[in-house]
Amino acid sequence: MTDAATNMRLRLPIICFILEIILIILFATLVQYNDETDAKEWHDKNHSEYENDFYYRYPSFQDVHVMIFIGFGFLMTFLQRYGFSSVGFNFLIAAFALQWATLMQGFFHGMHGSKIHIGVESMINADFCTGAVLISFGAVLGKTSPVQLLVMAMFEVTLFAVNEFVLLSTLGAKDAGGSMTIHTFGAYFGLMVTRVLYRPNLDKSKHRNSSVYHSDLFAMIGTIYLWMFWPSFNSAVTAHGDDQHRTAMNTYYSLAACTLSTYGMSALTAHDGKLDMVHIQNAALAGGVAAGTAGEMMLTPYGSMIVGFLAGIISVVGFKYLSPVLEEKLKIQDTCGVHNLHGMPGVLGAIVGAVTAAVATTDVYGKGMHDVFPDVASGKIQASYQGVRQAISLAVTLGIALGGGLIVGFILKLPVFGAPPDTICYEDSIYWEVPGDEEEHDDQLTAVRTTETEKLNS
Amino acid sequence: MTDAATNMRLRLPIICFILEIILIILFATLVQYNDETDAKEWHDKNHSEYENDFYYRYPSFQDVHVMIFIGFGFLMTFLQRYGFSSVGFNFLIAAFALQWATLMQGFFHGMHGSKIHIGVESMINADFCTGAVLISFGAVLGKTSPVQLLVMAMFEVTLFAVNEFVLLSTLGAKDAGGSMTIHTFGAYFGLMVTRVLYRPNLDKSKHRNSSVYHSDLFAMIGTIYLWMFWPSFNSAVTAHGDDQHRTAMNTYYSLAACTLSTYGMSALTAHDGKLDMVHIQNAALAGGVAAGTAGEMMLTPYGSMIVGFLAGIISVVGFKYLSPVLEEKLKIQDTCGVHNLHGMPGVLGAIVGAVTAAVATTDVYGKGMHDVFPDVASGKIQASYQGVRQAISLAVTLGIALGGGLIVGFILKLPVFGAPPDTICYEDSIYWEVPGDEEEHDDQLTAVRTTETEKLNS
Amino acid sequence: MTDAATNMRLRLPIICFILEIILIILFATLVQYNDETDAKEWHDKNHSEYENDFYYRYPSFQDVHVMIFIGFGFLMTFLQRYGFSSVGFNFLIAAFALQWATLMQGFFHGMHGSKIHIGVESMINADFCTGAVLISFGAVLGKTSPVQLLVMAMFEVTLFAVNEFVLLSTLGAKDAGGSMTIHTFGAYFGLMVTRVLYRPNLDKSKHRNSSVYHSDLFAMIGTIYLWMFWPSFNSAVTAHGDDQHRTAMNTYYSLAACTLSTYGMSALTAHDGKLDMVHIQNAALAGGVAAGTAGEMMLTPYGSMIVGFLAGIISVVGFKYLSPVLEEKLKIQDTCGVHNLHGMPGVLGAIVGAVTAAVATTDVYGKGMHDVFPDVASGKIQASYQGVRQAISLAVTLGIALGGGLIVGFILKLPVFGAPPDTICYEDSIYWEVPGDEEEHDDQLTAVRTTETEKLNS
Repeated sequence: MTDAATNMRLRLPIICFILEIILIILFATLVQYNDETDAKEWHDKNHSEYENDFYYRYPSFQDVHVMIFIGFGFLMTFLQRYGFSSVGFNFLIAAFALQWATLMQGFFHGMHGSKIHIGVESMINADFCTGAVLISFGAVLGKTSPVQLLVMAMFEVTLFAVNEFVLLSTLGAKDAGGSMTIHTFGAYFGLMVTRVLYRPNLDKSKHRNSSVYHSDLFAMIGTIYLWMFWPSFNSAVTAHGDDQHRTAMNTYYSLAACTLSTYGMSALTAHDGKLDMVHIQNAALAGGVAAGTAGEMMLTPYGSMIVGFLAGIISVVGFKYLSPVLEEKLKIQDTCGVHNLHGMPGVLGAIVGAVTAAVATTDVYGKGMHDVFPDVASGKIQASYQGVRQAISLAVTLGIALGGGLIVGFILKLPVFGAPPDTICYEDSIYWEVPGDEEEHDDQLTAVRTTETEKLNS
Repeated sequence: MTDAATNMRLRLPIICFILEIILIILFATLVQYNDETDAKEWHDKNHSEYENDFYYRYPSFQDVHVMIFIGFGFLMTFLQRYGFSSVGFNFLIAAFALQWATLMQGFFHGMHGSKIHIGVESMINADFCTGAVLISFGAVLGKTSPVQLLVMAMFEVTLFAVNEFVLLSTLGAKDAGGSMTIHTFGAYFGLMVTRVLYRPNLDKSKHRNSSVYHSDLFAMIGTIYLWMFWPSFNSAVTAHGDDQHRTAMNTYYSLAACTLSTYGMSALTAHDGKLDMVHIQNAALAGGVAAGTAGEMMLTPYGSMIVGFLAGIISVVGFKYLSPVLEEKLKIQDTCGVHNLHGMPGVLGAIVGAVTAAVATTDVYGKGMHDVFPDVASGKIQASYQGVRQAISLAVTLGIALGGGLIVGFILKLPVFGAPPDTICYEDSIYWEVPGDEEEHDDQLTAVRTTETEKLNS
Repeated sequence: MTDAATNMRLRLPIICFILEIILIILFATLVQYNDETDAKEWHDKNHSEYENDFYYRYPSFQDVHVMIFIGFGFLMTFLQRYGFSSVGFNFLIAAFALQWATLMQGFFHGMHGSKIHIGVESMINADFCTGAVLISFGAVLGKTSPVQLLVMAMFEVTLFAVNEFVLLSTLGAKDAGGSMTIHTFGAYFGLMVTRVLYRPNLDKSKHRNSSVYHSDLFAMIGTIYLWMFWPSFNSAVTAHGDDQHRTAMNTYYSLAACTLSTYGMSALTAHDGKLDMVHIQNAALAGGVAAGTAGEMMLTPYGSMIVGFLAGIISVVGFKYLSPVLEEKLKIQDTCGVHNLHGMPGVLGAIVGAVTAAVATTDVYGKGMHDVFPDVASGKIQASYQGVRQAISLAVTLGIALGGGLIVGFILKLPVFGAPPDTICYEDSIYWEVPGDEEEHDDQLTAVRTTETEKLNS
């Protein structure tokens, strides 16, 4: 196990320290408090303390933060022997990615003169970008070293920021909850990476690529937190007022409907009608993904429910019938099934967003059109053209994700990052000190316990 | 196990799909964004974006949401072999109930013309109604199929909305935290259902009706979340300003006091002075239930503490001495002891509310009387009469809960819903694909591990 | 096991009931709603309901509340056989401490005439004080009875309030996130208590003083919640506006940087490069502790990252090299390593705070100086003298913590509190009814399962 090839004693400290020191230097050079976090700037303006955006974004930020660290982290603990790595590597790469994302997103969106200005909104956006990296992590789960993951995060965050800039700033697309920028991007990037890292002998670790009873319960903690807080995720960076309120509510109903179709489909596709935890843990969340673009639009509550309902069906069908085909025919070993939870529902969400945008009218949006589709409101473009923008954005996202994943996959193949051998995938003990499963026996105590139990039963 | 009688392959998909399609049709016909979620309506009015009620209710909503899905879901995972069903069926019926509740509560309280208008407050109320269903679920836990649970939820939500309408709109009672509408209603409804579904041979599953070490820890996640967020629950729909603030604080102190009396009583009632996890997991929450009605009133901090203190005592005594009697004499098989956590403390809360209302004076409430007791403030009735209203409301709630539970219990007895046999209750594997408990052995790896450990120890 | 010496049947109820009754009497005599929770007072003033501080403090309060009950509670469940006690005693002593802290802190800081006025800010402060008690609990974990813990909490809360009063009111120090008042105080108090309670024969329980696989995952729930919500903790009671916003953001970056240095150091200090869960669970949080004093100051984002980076390194080094020395040479048996997570990082935070205060200028803070350093802003003192105040405060805190811990340690040594013997430390079953680890066997069901599995595999 202490094989030199996978030993992290030098590799991991070197990359962690170098990355963090670079981050600190770049932050020192480039990053400043924005005018809501800077003591002087804030007090130079005449406003109530209560108008600070902290009060209108921070609760959403914390919900998103929980999704990133608890939601994604525990969702992936379903493997019997990979809980430390799931939650632990999730923690590590997220902590790195959110710092790096602050710089990359700031560079593309937030330069004020030569400085990046930061506050709660940039924190939310950094967490969002981190979410995409964690989706890709789901595809390669169990087959990568922490060093590979940090390298992947570094490149993926950069490409994420490029794609986001192209979509939101150049193309003028709307994607508040990130059906495209986060879910589609993260999923197809990760799928391409895992394709390039294809392991023909992975079946030697097959016996560890499954759950045990309590690991499935830990994973449900992740699932439920993602499910509960998805309304906050989709609404975290929309315009204030009705927009945030409506987005949260649309997502709430989309998720509720998705849960019913997931349970129905899970029982329907099992020969004995038994529910499959994989479906419940994942497909029930597809409604949140699919409402990521259109959630802020006037999708209507029943429209949201239809979207969620379809997302649940697509996702279960993906897990049941498509994933095995992808693995066998296309050699895509997708550990967590991110194609089913983030890939297809993300594309569905993008399409729903394009259609909903294309049919937007002033009759329905009134003066609220300015918040949702500013270019339509200002008369610069027609609503139908906004739909076209959205559709092009989906295509661009797929292109950058697949192209980027291809290149990064080959970089990760370099034999210097300490990847585990095919025989010891999905296994914590290659990178972690792992204690036993059983408590230590304490004969004296067991004896007392037994005696006492007997007394009680007699 | 794949017994035709309990096979869900057709039953569950049929009910899930039919219910969701009906919901979508009714939402399409009846439900609209309210003037805080509708883009046009909101922007037609002249106000700051920050005045949207989203910012003053949504954080409370998310806390309530966590209580419903994590709190109730994990609280019930204490059984050794019913964790998937506890958290999974909780998830399913809650996702259904919150949609159905939106319609039923909207029908009774929120019609604007022929439309139901929805926003964050209706989302909170839908979650509240769902809470009552989950309380009833606790009474029948382990003995019902998911189809039975969905049928129960459908009827219970409807009756909940009727009872709530009678109490709040017809009788003019106050019950912000739902001591009556949620806890008393949910508990006695569920107790009557489980009475009707009485299983004389349930002792054949007795060996599974207990916890194991880690299942008790999972349950504590549920307990602690319920405990922490109960202040948000009780204050989620009270009037803004001092009312929400005071309600949260009263509940906080009630729960703290309840925890001390629970620990004290748990040790006192054990022959060897050892604490019982069942008490800690449940009775420590009774202070939140008991502060559900009077929490928004000028109960005073020490008044709240007295209420919590008593609730903890009553609840432990109920678990220890009353539950066995209910089961033996009245044939009420109450799996989670909802009578002790929600039933008796709910009644206590209703009584405390009636008394606190009856002694309300303008000296104490000042102009704040308008928020808490509008009819007293307007001079329409005397405070003492408000107390009478509260007392009548308790009686009405008990009547509708018991009567409704009786009827719904008989409906659930129909032999078409796939209920488990007496011999296989409290068992996940009847409705779920269940993995093993043990990790797969990996001889190669174990060998390496052992060698290494020996090296380390030498 | 039902040894008379550790039997809690009378001891625990007596102390719980007496303490709670005293609390109720003191609350009845001394405590009143403040003007934001009192119906009359609030409505006597002319303001919008939305200006109630509830809306600007309560979300932070709930995050802090989660850290206290879930964060600390689950962080300590890492021991294989002490999960019930970790989360359960944490629950009990926190529920007591927050009530007692309301009185003690109110007595020192919040008297209005002869009354203590309470609202959401006092609730946050009570939770903060509770945090210090739980840190001390970490030092004595596994070696104390619940009665000892309640006695300790009673004295520690009192001393905490004295120290806090001296620092904030007498010396005029700033310490919003409590690097000194909470972490340094709680850690050194607890370390002195555990020193006085030194158990020479503790190695007889050594086999239970370690984790098992799933207990480490439960502990990670605590870790991640503490990590996520630390920005809320440090900013919960700072001034409104830019101050809260900046504090949260500084803490966010400090923690992210700390996580990278923790992972790097954990791998670097292991002979085989494997990550150690103890480091990840604890040291990754040191960045929050170390940003507790300077977080509200203009520390800059990169300054915060440097602080976090150093805190992670110090903390891992402490776990690896210092803790064994403390135990062997100084006879300090620090179960959770609170010296490494709270002690040294707390001192680091105090020093960083003193330095950052000393270099504060009006150029940087502008009119915001009034919020952060009121005495500097008013010209009463120079910034450098504020730095001296901070340094003196650290010394005072260490003095009161060590002196107080010494006295309280000797009180806890009295042989009447039911402490466990050296042979049965770190063991739940001495104070709890503990179920088995294994599910009950159900031969019929196992048979069916096996048959079915065989069918599937064939």
